[in-house]
Formats: sequence, C-alpha cells, structure tokens
Amino acid sequence: MATRPDPVAAADDDARALARSLLQLGHASLAYLEAETASPGISRISFGCGPDGTPMTLISALAPHFAGLRAHPPCAVMLGEPGPKGDPLTHPRLMLRATASFIAPDDPARPALRDHWLTHHPKAKLYADFADFAFVRLTVATALLNGGFARAYRLTPTDLGTG
Amino acid sequence: MATRPDPVAAADDDARALARSLLQLGHASLAYLEAETASPGISRISFGCGPDGTPMTLISALAPHFAGLRAHPPCAVMLGEPGPKGDPLTHPRLMLRATASFIAPDDPARPALRDHWLTHHPKAKLYADFADFAFVRLTVATALLNGGFARAYRLTPTDLGTG
Repeated sequence: MATRPDPVAAADDDARALARSLLQLGHASLAYLEAETASPGISRISFGCGPDGTPMTLISALAPHFAGLRAHPPCAVMLGEPGPKGDPLTHPRLMLRATASFIAPDDPARPALRDHWLTHHPKAKLYADFADFAFVRLTVATALLNGGFARAYRLTPTDLGTG
Repeated sequence: MATRPDPVAAADDDARALARSLLQLGHASLAYLEAETASPGISRISFGCGPDGTPMTLISALAPHFAGLRAHPPCAVMLGEPGPKGDPLTHPRLMLRATASFIAPDDPARPALRDHWLTHHPKAKLYADFADFAFVRLTVATALLNGGFARAYRLTPTDLGTG
C-alpha cells in the first residue's frame, strides 16, 4: 500500500482568516486532565482573547476543570459548533493545544484583563470578582483548523495573532 | 469560611430523561490523550449508541484521536451544544468519562453494530467499511449532567441506560 500524503496542509490566508474568526467566539470546549487521576475530562468554558490576543477563560473553583488545570496545565480547546443544518463533521472548528496559567487576584495585569473581558462578556460582571473565580490564560503552542472533510490546516500562534 | 455544599446532586427522573435525550445526538466533542505526549487533545466525533445502548463512534486513522485512543483508552465525551440564542453556559450538556475499545474488522459483533450505526448515520455508508476506519466503543464509567448554572447531576451507566 502506498504511503498516504500528509492530510494536514500549512496555513494559507483563507485558513488564517477562518481561524481568527473562530477565536472571536464567546465559548468553547475544553479538554483537560482530572486533578487526581490525570485522565481526560471535558467541559464547556467561557472563552475570549485578552488585550494582547492571548486566549483566556474565567472559571469557578466549583468546576472540575479548575482543579484539573491547576494540577496539570496542558490542555486543548475547541472552537466552532455545528449549526442546526448540514453535516456536523464538515462544520469548521479550530483546535488549540495550550498551557493554562492562572492569574492571581493581585496580579498587576488583572485589572486590564478583567475590563477587557467584561466588554465581551458583560454578564460576567455578576461573578468575575468572586473570590472563587479566576481568569486563566491559555497560551497556544500549536493549532489545527478543520474546515471540513479532508481540509485540515496546521497553524502557529503567529497565524492566529495570539502571540 | 464555611464549607460549601456539594454542588453536584444525585440524579432524579428529570435529569435521567434529559441525559438520555442528549445521548440521541449524532455528534459530540471528545477529549483524549495524544498518542506520543499523553497531553490532552480535543476533536469533534460522530456519536451514536449501539444496539445495547453503549456509546460508540466511527473514526478514521487519519484523525489524531485514532492513535490517541489506541495508545490511551481513557477519554471523555461531551454532548449538547448551545443554540444560537441564550447563554451558552446554561445550555444543557452531558459529560461522560469513558474507556475506548476498538472493534476489530473481524469481530463477530461488528456486522450488527455497523448496521445499527448506519440506520442513524446513513451518510457513513460511504466510508464505514474503508480499511482505515474503525468503530470504537466508549464504555461509560460515570457521567455528569450540567443542566445550567448551579444545576449539576451525577449519573451512573444505569441512569443513562448504557449498561
């Protein structure tokens, strides 16, 4: 049997534009490692990019991924959800491999991150400053854009404008 | 500070009914471990339940989660996606902790699983029998239903009708 060609292409301008539009979404799916077992967990999260373009989330200490990301920073994020019509597996989605870092309550960068977050997530004003909520940076290592069947692209943080 | 009450309740009939309706969805998000690094990865997958109620997927060897699940069977699945309206974080979703097992091409159970799958995923007829596609059972250990803010329920395979 002949070797198959690499199914993943390098990014082009269309792929970069589609990926950047998916980064504008306000929520995402998060894959993380459970704190105690290091086995995979999955959650829905709030999502946004900070003033410098770094992906971020705001999470409650009651959510299982809070302890998971604290114990094991490597994680993955998926953006883009199928609409009500068409084949869900051909709907574009962006997968980020990232490393989580918690923003301490007294981090001098926090006020600017918080204000930027609240312009895109105004309802979060109700809980963003609770003691058991934390902002978390999701620093991207690599990304994969799946634009539909047999249309996959590898992207760098520079392609995404995230760093 | 007083200890908070456990934010997760035991399943009741409404939670069981909602969870079982989410198990009818045809696609899901999968959290898995990358084959080489064992760091978290995330993908969109086809989803369905077999004749005995066991969750399943059908995946291509070109997808990164194929090698990931082969190397590391523990995984997690999320079902239920926000509609175009309302707060995405209050939209119901079901999270399954599961173990993946690949169905061999010559497994005597495969023909019945395949036929059952194709009644719910008729388009998969085009590729279900390709040599580089495999059916994978996702045997559930525990499940968490999030029915919206502060409404979380713990469910067993019996609650779900999956085993």
